[in-house]
Amino acid sequence: MPIIEIHMARGRTVTQKRELVAGVTDAVVAALGVRADQVRILIDELAPEHFAVSGKTTGQRLGNTEALAGACEPASANSIVQNEGSLL
Amino acid sequence: MPIIEIHMARGRTVTQKRELVAGVTDAVVAALGVRADQVRILIDELAPEHFAVSGKTTGQRLGNTEALAGACEPASANSIVQNEGSLL
Amino acid sequence: MPIIEIHMARGRTVTQKRELVAGVTDAVVAALGVRADQVRILIDELAPEHFAVSGKTTGQRLGNTEALAGACEPASANSIVQNEGSLL
Amino acid sequence: MPIIEIHMARGRTVTQKRELVAGVTDAVVAALGVRADQVRILIDELAPEHFAVSGKTTGQRLGNTEALAGACEPASANSIVQNEGSLL
Amino acid sequence: MPIIEIHMARGRTVTQKRELVAGVTDAVVAALGVRADQVRILIDELAPEHFAVSGKTTGQRLGNTEALAGACEPASANSIVQNEGSLL
Amino acid sequence: MPIIEIHMARGRTVTQKRELVAGVTDAVVAALGVRADQVRILIDELAPEHFAVSGKTTGQRLGNTEALAGACEPASANSIVQNEGSLL
Repeated sequence: MPIIEIHMARGRTVTQKRELVAGVTDAVVAALGVRADQVRILIDELAPEHFAVSGKTTGQRLGNTEALAGACEPASANSIVQNEGSLL
Repeated sequence: MPIIEIHMARGRTVTQKRELVAGVTDAVVAALGVRADQVRILIDELAPEHFAVSGKTTGQRLGNTEALAGACEPASANSIVQNEGSLL
Repeated sequence: MPIIEIHMARGRTVTQKRELVAGVTDAVVAALGVRADQVRILIDELAPEHFAVSGKTTGQRLGNTEALAGACEPASANSIVQNEGSLL
Repeated sequence: MPIIEIHMARGRTVTQKRELVAGVTDAVVAALGVRADQVRILIDELAPEHFAVSGKTTGQRLGNTEALAGACEPASANSIVQNEGSLL
Repeated sequence: MPIIEIHMARGRTVTQKRELVAGVTDAVVAALGVRADQVRILIDELAPEHFAVSGKTTGQRLGNTEALAGACEPASANSIVQNEGSLL
Repeated sequence: MPIIEIHMARGRTVTQKRELVAGVTDAVVAALGVRADQVRILIDELAPEHFAVSGKTTGQRLGNTEALAGACEPASANSIVQNEGSLL
């Protein structure tokens, strides 16, 4: 059965996602002794205004003031991911 | 740890989302005695055809007949949120 | 209360989604004896690179090599759904 | 793929759960045209103090004052389900 | 609609849970302008071996060696919550 | 951020769970380039009557007829896990 949901910041490449599901599947197979075809993975990508720590969204931490003009999601998703190491 | 997922209708502004995560974080800190930086919040926005009560989607209740022409999501998300008080 | 989350491949029509929530609501009412207005359903649609079995995404199984050029989501969602019977 | 999570009040019988998953699976197959073996269902049962509407838990609405003495979950789960038709 | 899932460490009292759902509901009402009866909250409690940061479970960080003897969940949930301020 | 929910059959040992979260964390770190302390994992264990494929619960597939006598969860969780390789 194992069914795995991964919530992560928007902006990873297709290559990164494929490496992610391959690696996580291998880890689940090794730890639980199931077959790889029993492992299902769902990825949920979150926009910068859809994830918060300490009561502030990622967009807010990065100073996305343009987002306040009305857009539902700021455009700078990639820069957020590049900064994620120090931020999240 | 507290990790909080909020499922809500699509269409809120960035300002509303930031007030939401600030207020919910404060409430969690006050009730559970954790630090604010331990609280993580994920927002999941739902299109009008992706939420249903009584077996009918929000789009269906609002009479979004144009949606039947093939579009995956009707454009009138904002009007739905404005009507949400009486609908949902 | 029953609250139901449905994770499925992106690409179904509005008509299919409305039939889905109507049918699932009827089934829940029949089995649990709740009222239809107590049943809430949330639909979560997954792009081809956001669902994986056996460590490979749906996009990967279908040979979406163009996705590797950098796009976050390949455009061929509909063809994936058409093939789902044999794939997923 | 369809993967379905059902959140519901604790206390249903095994027979009800089996009828539930059979009926929901049939509804998904009929609406989406997938095979039954592609449909996975996960049930999440909620204790009376783990579900709230209007800022009050189910246990609170039913006057489970004994719960305040320290038990993590009141024992009267069955009576709650019997009352659910009028409550939730 | 807002439907909110709260994942947290096992061991809070009923009083804390009721304060939690009351406070979170108020915060959602204030930020989104919905009615309180539109807000539903689900609580998911996690045992010490069911939550991990940095690849280690909470039980592992607290040195629950007795858990390795075969029990599915160590008994010391309360001590974990008391230590959560410095741990999680 | 990555936050990962793992839904799996009840019955794994503490050792298996610790190997699972260690391995999955390593895989996420390798694929996404985040730090290990940014990775959070939540485990959700499912009883045999709480997971279904093809409209039948795991308990039903294994012939847990005693479950019909009224118990909410059959006792034979371990045997189910041992059979999972051929079942799920």
